[in-house]
Amino acid sequence: MASTRSIARLLNHVSQHSATCPCHTTHHAASTPAALSQLRRYATPVDNKEYAFEVAASNLRFGSNVTSEVGYDLSNMKARKVGVFTDVNLASLHPMKATLASLDVQPDLPFEVMALPAGEPTEESWASAIEWARTHDFSHFLAVGGGSVIDTAKAANLFTVFKEAQLMDFVNAPVGKGLPVTQPLRPLIAIPTTAGTGSETTGAAIFDVTSRSFKTGIANRALKPVLGIVDTQNTATCPREVHISAGLDVLFHSLESYTAIPYTKRTRPSNPILRPAYQGSNPVADVFSFWALQTTVKYLPRVAKNTDDDEARRQMLLAASFAGIGFGNAGVHLCHGMSYPISGLNKKGPKYKHPGYLNPQPIIPHGISVAITGPAVFQFTAPSSPDRHRQVLAVFNNTSPSDPSITRIPDSEIGAHVYDTIARFLDGLGVPRGLKALGYTTADIPMLVEGTIPQRRVLDLAPGIGDVVDEDGREHLTKMLEQSLEY
Amino acid sequence: MASTRSIARLLNHVSQHSATCPCHTTHHAASTPAALSQLRRYATPVDNKEYAFEVAASNLRFGSNVTSEVGYDLSNMKARKVGVFTDVNLASLHPMKATLASLDVQPDLPFEVMALPAGEPTEESWASAIEWARTHDFSHFLAVGGGSVIDTAKAANLFTVFKEAQLMDFVNAPVGKGLPVTQPLRPLIAIPTTAGTGSETTGAAIFDVTSRSFKTGIANRALKPVLGIVDTQNTATCPREVHISAGLDVLFHSLESYTAIPYTKRTRPSNPILRPAYQGSNPVADVFSFWALQTTVKYLPRVAKNTDDDEARRQMLLAASFAGIGFGNAGVHLCHGMSYPISGLNKKGPKYKHPGYLNPQPIIPHGISVAITGPAVFQFTAPSSPDRHRQVLAVFNNTSPSDPSITRIPDSEIGAHVYDTIARFLDGLGVPRGLKALGYTTADIPMLVEGTIPQRRVLDLAPGIGDVVDEDGREHLTKMLEQSLEY
Repeated sequence: MASTRSIARLLNHVSQHSATCPCHTTHHAASTPAALSQLRRYATPVDNKEYAFEVAASNLRFGSNVTSEVGYDLSNMKARKVGVFTDVNLASLHPMKATLASLDVQPDLPFEVMALPAGEPTEESWASAIEWARTHDFSHFLAVGGGSVIDTAKAANLFTVFKEAQLMDFVNAPVGKGLPVTQPLRPLIAIPTTAGTGSETTGAAIFDVTSRSFKTGIANRALKPVLGIVDTQNTATCPREVHISAGLDVLFHSLESYTAIPYTKRTRPSNPILRPAYQGSNPVADVFSFWALQTTVKYLPRVAKNTDDDEARRQMLLAASFAGIGFGNAGVHLCHGMSYPISGLNKKGPKYKHPGYLNPQPIIPHGISVAITGPAVFQFTAPSSPDRHRQVLAVFNNTSPSDPSITRIPDSEIGAHVYDTIARFLDGLGVPRGLKALGYTTADIPMLVEGTIPQRRVLDLAPGIGDVVDEDGREHLTKMLEQSLEY
Repeated sequence: MASTRSIARLLNHVSQHSATCPCHTTHHAASTPAALSQLRRYATPVDNKEYAFEVAASNLRFGSNVTSEVGYDLSNMKARKVGVFTDVNLASLHPMKATLASLDVQPDLPFEVMALPAGEPTEESWASAIEWARTHDFSHFLAVGGGSVIDTAKAANLFTVFKEAQLMDFVNAPVGKGLPVTQPLRPLIAIPTTAGTGSETTGAAIFDVTSRSFKTGIANRALKPVLGIVDTQNTATCPREVHISAGLDVLFHSLESYTAIPYTKRTRPSNPILRPAYQGSNPVADVFSFWALQTTVKYLPRVAKNTDDDEARRQMLLAASFAGIGFGNAGVHLCHGMSYPISGLNKKGPKYKHPGYLNPQPIIPHGISVAITGPAVFQFTAPSSPDRHRQVLAVFNNTSPSDPSITRIPDSEIGAHVYDTIARFLDGLGVPRGLKALGYTTADIPMLVEGTIPQRRVLDLAPGIGDVVDEDGREHLTKMLEQSLEY
């Protein structure tokens, strides 16, 4: 399968690095003390490498029953006509009822509602949402739902402003053209109903390219909502399984963004508008991601135990938004990259249907598809930044990174410890124990690898993976998927 | 001096609280364990109390030499005509040179430059900046400078959009009318040249009402810049004294916002547009404020020791922006409230001139005027939240709040420890040791108290102070100022 070009690259790569297996690389200065390593991580870059990072986040409003304010907001913004997006399951539930009540009491606030089909968005569902929004030429957008609904509203907004554009024009390269967004979009308000995607604060919008059996999307900070209304009442009716899957998304947003390659390793853009939303880890995203990690490890098990635990639900909503700010500016990497074919191929392949999800179609919920490779991924990434992985280990073990139980682990063994710790945490939440439990077999792995390769947007941020077009990139992915078959 | 009304209020107050002196109040459950106390701090409010909080921040871009990107940004935004604000001292220095070079290379990017007078803004300097901006009808605003310059650009932007408005229309009540800002302003980009005010990420704009000898301002999230360009090269030429004063502003932004009354103690607004930018402490601002506190305590002494310490300068810039996000959403209280008359009355009174400042006029730099009451203020506020003050103490002592050296201090003694610790820290930075060192005497205290009383915007957020129109509020202020005379 290796082309001449990829062989040439591989040779070049080997000549530059004495050991290409990340388990044996030493150029991250594993023996350096933590503080110095931290300092070096963001040292001044050389040549054409990136020298700056940006931090963007939506305005956020947190509170119980704060959904009831959205009518005032749209009125204050002098909305001419509002496009309200939700889904068929939510249409009759509290969050949507509270939204409509709030819109109804405002004089002169015309709005239209679209209830999207249940499940994750596809190019077809996006196309019909876009057509509907273009027809109405909404001045303002409002999304009430999980990531699927909010992401669809972002796409509808984008393609209402860019009336003539094709869906693939803005989709991340190389799947789409990845064009820059050169005009401001219309105001979008997002009201999340799960503590998961953090989509209320990011410029990311993901959909399922069913024709190619994987998910991809648009990641551009122009898409981010102007306001996220985070109402602690809106997750009260979530089934336990939705809480867990959404919470796992938060967990891996924080873990992946905290361990992504440093922003200084990317190439510098020629114009700041070309700086990607997913920039690699940076000192500001680190604060958000690490806070979200600590909070999720503490409170997600409490929500899983008792979905009526108000304090835990509130903290998970905060963590979801914080992780959104973290990964929205730093990016995600391998778990998300591999999750797209894992969930995308399910419809044709194993047809796994997760308990607790209402829609009749097969579904591997996003959080589950992300978590399933978690242990193997962080075992793989550990050598790239042993100190960060030691900090992660300390969070899961509820101790300090300076505790002897953590410091005495040699760098070479951190990965194995992280593998065990994450696997135990997932097991405690009832996550299926590997790809086999979802119905995949060893024979499916090459297909999952090929489905991951086009996710360059996120794979480029993965430490230690190298160029995934190369054989060694494929080898790494294959090995991680094999290690994720069962545990 | 007490009116009938204030006596009636005082009696009412006394009847509700068995002990009104904050040193003796117990309703903050001093003996409760830290975790439970934290939980209760943001417990669901009752009656008409606030139930939500908002988080707003500018997009921020951090990096070395990132000023050179601003021309691209304004070009990408299709600016018709840019109003560039700086001050006479900066006009010939690196940050402004880099800005002009970046604007000059862009084709079709018309701009005009105003170099403001040195020193802090007054109603006169604002009036001429506003007149200039209205005449040019700028489509975009750019501020290159410290807080004074950025704040002036915010005001110029506001009053360009509200062409007919009077200066006092939007100034915080009761000094001004405190009207809501009902239209979006024009895009403002801020390039800070000090690690201090955090003005690049807040909606606050402060000026000196010389006719009344105190400072006040406008605090409205509509004013916040769309982008803050935080360039680590731009503080390289700051004199040591400017670094210290600006850094003290960061320190007290973080300390005051972390200890401000919880947002749930405010009254709920009837429309979200009326929710103030300064909302009281809240879980999100807490994360920012506490991070900024830790960073400032660690790095400000390093900058003071060696202004060429790049790492320390970079961390202080991050801390300034983080503290800006913290206080921009939570607010500040007593140190800032009293600082306004302390610096405002200096021109008529002691005419103190701080070393290291270039302008010939008397000046108590903002950070110095804020810091001077710091030890007394946090001794006063400690009983309102002993656990938070214990955390503060731990940060200054470079230890954990669970360290026995911290936990063994009884609640009643936290305040005294905080007083000593902050005083020692300030002394280490060479801050004048009290109001007497600035030229004030005991006889000036009533005047300083009366100058503080109108600062309701911030005094309302002070824990334990009560209603400052009452005698007991005045008494508290008097006592804190007396304790700040010398130490």
